[in-house]
Amino acid sequence: MHLTTVILDGSTRAGRVEGDEVVILDAPDVGAVFAQGGSAELGRSISFTDAQLAPMVTAPDKIVCVGVNYLDHVAEMGRDKPAAPTYFAKYRSALIGARDDIALPSPDISTDIDWEVELAIVIGSTVRDASADEALAAIGGYTVLNDVSVRDYQRRTTQFLAGKTFEGMTPLGPVVVTRDELGDGSGLAISSAIDGVVKQSSSTSELCFNCIDIVQDLSRIITLEPGDVIATGTPGGVGAARTPPEWMVNGTVVRCSIEGIGETVNCCRLPG
Amino acid sequence: MHLTTVILDGSTRAGRVEGDEVVILDAPDVGAVFAQGGSAELGRSISFTDAQLAPMVTAPDKIVCVGVNYLDHVAEMGRDKPAAPTYFAKYRSALIGARDDIALPSPDISTDIDWEVELAIVIGSTVRDASADEALAAIGGYTVLNDVSVRDYQRRTTQFLAGKTFEGMTPLGPVVVTRDELGDGSGLAISSAIDGVVKQSSSTSELCFNCIDIVQDLSRIITLEPGDVIATGTPGGVGAARTPPEWMVNGTVVRCSIEGIGETVNCCRLPG
Repeated sequence: MHLTTVILDGSTRAGRVEGDEVVILDAPDVGAVFAQGGSAELGRSISFTDAQLAPMVTAPDKIVCVGVNYLDHVAEMGRDKPAAPTYFAKYRSALIGARDDIALPSPDISTDIDWEVELAIVIGSTVRDASADEALAAIGGYTVLNDVSVRDYQRRTTQFLAGKTFEGMTPLGPVVVTRDELGDGSGLAISSAIDGVVKQSSSTSELCFNCIDIVQDLSRIITLEPGDVIATGTPGGVGAARTPPEWMVNGTVVRCSIEGIGETVNCCRLPG
Repeated sequence: MHLTTVILDGSTRAGRVEGDEVVILDAPDVGAVFAQGGSAELGRSISFTDAQLAPMVTAPDKIVCVGVNYLDHVAEMGRDKPAAPTYFAKYRSALIGARDDIALPSPDISTDIDWEVELAIVIGSTVRDASADEALAAIGGYTVLNDVSVRDYQRRTTQFLAGKTFEGMTPLGPVVVTRDELGDGSGLAISSAIDGVVKQSSSTSELCFNCIDIVQDLSRIITLEPGDVIATGTPGGVGAARTPPEWMVNGTVVRCSIEGIGETVNCCRLPG
């Protein structure tokens, strides 16, 4: 099943996508569909192509990001292969819809704006201290997250958070594909393109820690809840690792695609 | 004014503390009192001494922590004086009340459990791209946070989050003292004690980045909202920096005190 979250009459609604039709459901977002264990139809449909998409989960309790989790990206960033998953967070106000503009910070704050296509897990059911089987069963589905990064803020201290949680810069969508279609999320082509030029191209089979590993490990630390979003890391090809570095600027269009899910397509916009 | 959040009849309620009396207010927690711009009395009082305290903000939109922010702690951890504030996050399920037990992880997960007394800011009003004056005006009040840390998880990768957000390990309270009483939060004695032995003793005037600096800097990245909690860092004297290292164990009582606010007193408890 392909679920989505749209903006309708000034609030958000979950929907089930069938072809170009979004069948509106009785839930405010995909997280609520999982929390409710499924949601009734409201007897209304809209066009998916024309829909204004919200972040798939509008206010997740947790957004967990995994860093340095593709071997090629580990190499390009000059890091060692990790012995454990590297976690950092984003706050909810970072999230935008899959077709929204990315709110660039004012140039006097930063111009080092980078792209990172990532497979994101959306948790479907509560899980703590999970076995591998329980970890898989707790995955509700998968979506695309562009972990847009303000690199100089990411690197001004040891901790990534500052450069990862700028407001309105993290696209999440366009749909959540339920686990029955994608299993453990491995074997999916994953890519990004800047103004039509492919920059990242890999497979989710290249993850150092796969989706089951991550959910299992995280569940030793905290209870994961329906709607929690876990971004699993980005493959090689980011702008910071290029010579010279490449950054997104006002008007740049960034497209992030994952096989079997779809794509986020966002234009970078300076304020004002 | 001293505000608090108590558990009453199975849910949480804000209150105003007057001597040993908690005057119950029409708000679910201190964050809501700030968001409402003040809350009406409900005509009921309880004893502060006997009250079951909740975290002062039960579900903050953001918990931001500042690392390596006291010069003596920077030195003991072998780090350089920072050029910018070091931010990391906690998730909400880490928070507990000022008198609750700290839920130790099972010993096969970790036994490296450390204490960190911190002055925490509670944001009182929405602020973005703040001047210094606006940053100060956005501070609703101050409380005590014990940033209990699972050191081996904190250090297993470059990113602190894993060791900082274990569930049910971060006491927050016992009251929020409004800004009119404590100004910019400087000049306050801050200390922690383990089973009655003082381990940390400093002043909030030793902060590398003070409360105004932090709110101002964060507000360039994200909008801060009423109820957001910002832990400003811990002074020297943590267990990890001692020779040999000292950890909290089952039955350890940790007391974190800040002049003019009060103290968290929590007992560490293994599961089961």
